[in-house]
Amino acid sequence: MTDQQLSAGDLDLPTTDQLLPELAEYVAIPSNSRSASLETMREAAQWLAGQLAQIDARVVETDGFPVVRGDWLGAPGAPTVLVYGHYDVQPTGSLNEWVSPPFTMTIDGDVIRGRGVTDDKGPVFMVLKVLQAFLAQRGGLPLNIKLLFEGEEEVGSPSLPDYVRSHADELAADLVISADGAMWRPTEPSLSIASKGLVSLSVFVTGPAGDLHSGRFGGTVHNPTHALSKILASLHGDDGRVAVPGFYDGADDLSAERRAEIDAVPFDEEEYRQTVGVPGLFGEAGYTTLQRLWERPTLEINGLEAGGKYTVIPHTATGHISCRLVGTQDPDRVVAAISKHIDSLDLPGVDVEIRSDKGRVPAYRISPDHPAIIAGTEALNHVYPDEDVLLAVIAGTLPATTLFEEALGAKTLFFSFSTADEKLHAPNEFLRIHRINEGMRAWERLLILLAAKLPTASSVKVGE
Amino acid sequence: MTDQQLSAGDLDLPTTDQLLPELAEYVAIPSNSRSASLETMREAAQWLAGQLAQIDARVVETDGFPVVRGDWLGAPGAPTVLVYGHYDVQPTGSLNEWVSPPFTMTIDGDVIRGRGVTDDKGPVFMVLKVLQAFLAQRGGLPLNIKLLFEGEEEVGSPSLPDYVRSHADELAADLVISADGAMWRPTEPSLSIASKGLVSLSVFVTGPAGDLHSGRFGGTVHNPTHALSKILASLHGDDGRVAVPGFYDGADDLSAERRAEIDAVPFDEEEYRQTVGVPGLFGEAGYTTLQRLWERPTLEINGLEAGGKYTVIPHTATGHISCRLVGTQDPDRVVAAISKHIDSLDLPGVDVEIRSDKGRVPAYRISPDHPAIIAGTEALNHVYPDEDVLLAVIAGTLPATTLFEEALGAKTLFFSFSTADEKLHAPNEFLRIHRINEGMRAWERLLILLAAKLPTASSVKVGE
Repeated sequence: MTDQQLSAGDLDLPTTDQLLPELAEYVAIPSNSRSASLETMREAAQWLAGQLAQIDARVVETDGFPVVRGDWLGAPGAPTVLVYGHYDVQPTGSLNEWVSPPFTMTIDGDVIRGRGVTDDKGPVFMVLKVLQAFLAQRGGLPLNIKLLFEGEEEVGSPSLPDYVRSHADELAADLVISADGAMWRPTEPSLSIASKGLVSLSVFVTGPAGDLHSGRFGGTVHNPTHALSKILASLHGDDGRVAVPGFYDGADDLSAERRAEIDAVPFDEEEYRQTVGVPGLFGEAGYTTLQRLWERPTLEINGLEAGGKYTVIPHTATGHISCRLVGTQDPDRVVAAISKHIDSLDLPGVDVEIRSDKGRVPAYRISPDHPAIIAGTEALNHVYPDEDVLLAVIAGTLPATTLFEEALGAKTLFFSFSTADEKLHAPNEFLRIHRINEGMRAWERLLILLAAKLPTASSVKVGE
Repeated sequence: MTDQQLSAGDLDLPTTDQLLPELAEYVAIPSNSRSASLETMREAAQWLAGQLAQIDARVVETDGFPVVRGDWLGAPGAPTVLVYGHYDVQPTGSLNEWVSPPFTMTIDGDVIRGRGVTDDKGPVFMVLKVLQAFLAQRGGLPLNIKLLFEGEEEVGSPSLPDYVRSHADELAADLVISADGAMWRPTEPSLSIASKGLVSLSVFVTGPAGDLHSGRFGGTVHNPTHALSKILASLHGDDGRVAVPGFYDGADDLSAERRAEIDAVPFDEEEYRQTVGVPGLFGEAGYTTLQRLWERPTLEINGLEAGGKYTVIPHTATGHISCRLVGTQDPDRVVAAISKHIDSLDLPGVDVEIRSDKGRVPAYRISPDHPAIIAGTEALNHVYPDEDVLLAVIAGTLPATTLFEEALGAKTLFFSFSTADEKLHAPNEFLRIHRINEGMRAWERLLILLAAKLPTASSVKVGE
């Protein structure tokens, strides 16, 4: 593409009236990765690949559900970006809670509703339409693009690591751009500069060989639920701090500068409290709610299981725990610290076993000075000229970022036009219709800016 | 019946070979009160009533499943006893765990196996056969007898209290004899002189309006499972004592004499530990295992419910609790003490609700000097001449005892030939065959002894 073509003005993009019927076809494929057949998942993958037949996008089998791959490498010397997203969706949950059928995309005022419209079928669709427009109207793209859309994101991407590691050369890129991930609010354009790490484990307390009658055996054995309660209660102080020695190693206290930055972000605690629906906010002492949400690690008990409402001493009691990590907290050391702390407790008459889960993800961060953040900010400024672009933190975990950094040496820019309030993973998932055009315009601008600004590593140079 | 008839030697009782096919018919009726139809329950009740057609035993409808009632009041001036039992059985549990079909009574060496054989169809059957023999061979019974067999014991006897209270005059008796309840060991004949009381409640901790993503909201709200763990951990000290102020009111420390009595009971802690299958025994400091089991109140967490193994902050967490009471502990005050203790905890950002259950049962005790205990001991000595009769405690709860005491002013003698190890409520429930003849002989002797020894209250005098 020549400079002349690049400056040929904005692309002629399709209207939402033109786009929505096509998106509805995609939403109609019930690609729920928790229960759909391989055939259904292939159908969704094939639909995606069909959108970019011009560049020979294709369905590639993996050990699990297939990925969709496609490359356009016609810009020798220009940077290369890997666009990531997923075609699988969450389970619908109870159909009774949906106001319209989840796989029949429905227009309702300013939004479209349906499973996957905002996570992640809609956001991926926006990218495809921009790439189609570039290819049709300009004969090429401003930079080299590799596409990687997976079908297992909602179930923890079990096959992605092997696929990416074993195709690292083929996938090499200067930057990954994720069409997955959500802006934190509908009213403020934002880019994410960090996400938290994650480790999880379960604590199994076992006492008697089988459940015991709480009368005929009561008072003679240590009830596993009592021991579990002591274990779990010991994990936090009354001040909300995690009370596990060593847990905070690598989670440095916030600098005065960072505190000030976060304090400058418009955030109404009372409004947040009402949205979440709690009687009061609570958390680690010494930090504001937003400071905790963005910058502090957490240890949350996710589930409790034992016995039931009948007069029994359950023979086993289980607690499920996960921790969100920040800074340089080492996932392995966090697991070890929790195990050591629990082992140090005096719990007579029961056995305690801790089983930690495999997927251990460190925290991720991209510098606010990274060219991708600068380009992303400029692209958003172009679409939202009246708004400041906020540099936010995804308090959730995005394991793919760590994978791409390790396997490809590339940072990830989250560039999604989903919003965190659009009932991702819940019934009545929706997407604001105006975001579709905004998203396409922003992607168009982003790709042009990155072509100019993104440094190219020799290892991923294309062509010559 | 004349004195001559009474001293006419032992009854001619049927052999087990004669009895077992008939008991098998009764076991074959699947009278599981948790799931059987009213028709099936009526069939079981009718089977029982049919056994005592001689005294016009009959099926009487209640608000729930019917009771079986029958009276023989032909001994004016003699005492009157109410014989209690039940014709319903527990659910089978997993059929895979049964070594023979639960409703096909099977002889296996020295035992018979099937749902209900020991709880409570077999023990009730023994009484019926003794009554039949008295009526056939002696033309009457040694004392006045009223029968009351219910069909809802395994589901907490919901209709029994109303039935008994509204038929108090008709059911008036000098003593209740329960054919339900188990001896504590197969090798030692025993009578129960006490059972524990029971109260139960649930603690509901609620935080946010709905489950929250543990990343996107982590660190901003008080996780209800954290608060619940703190509540539950606060209920016991590390010494195993209940840490709720006021809980022990009415549960006096054991006298030196009672400690000595219990210490004289053969009880091997190591054998018990192995049977229960725990790494070590544990309970309230300052008491032996058997002292705790028989004489000390307990507070047990029966169940925990919250979230699951996924990265969520559950919006609610629930703990189910039940307490076994002793002495003069007041069930209402125990519930109030627990509620007050929990209310006193500092739990920001969550709502805590305590819901206590209706069935509140105080502890029950019958004096070792009561004529029924003396007669029962003598009857057991007659059948087991080489064994001492142990006065034991049922650490479980028998709500009917309290009901009969309140409504009829009568104490209850537990006189069952079931044994606590016979897999009551579990798969492969069984009954030792030799117990059937022993039981019938003991009932025969018991009725004769009670006729002579039991004081008769004017209010229950029969005939004249």
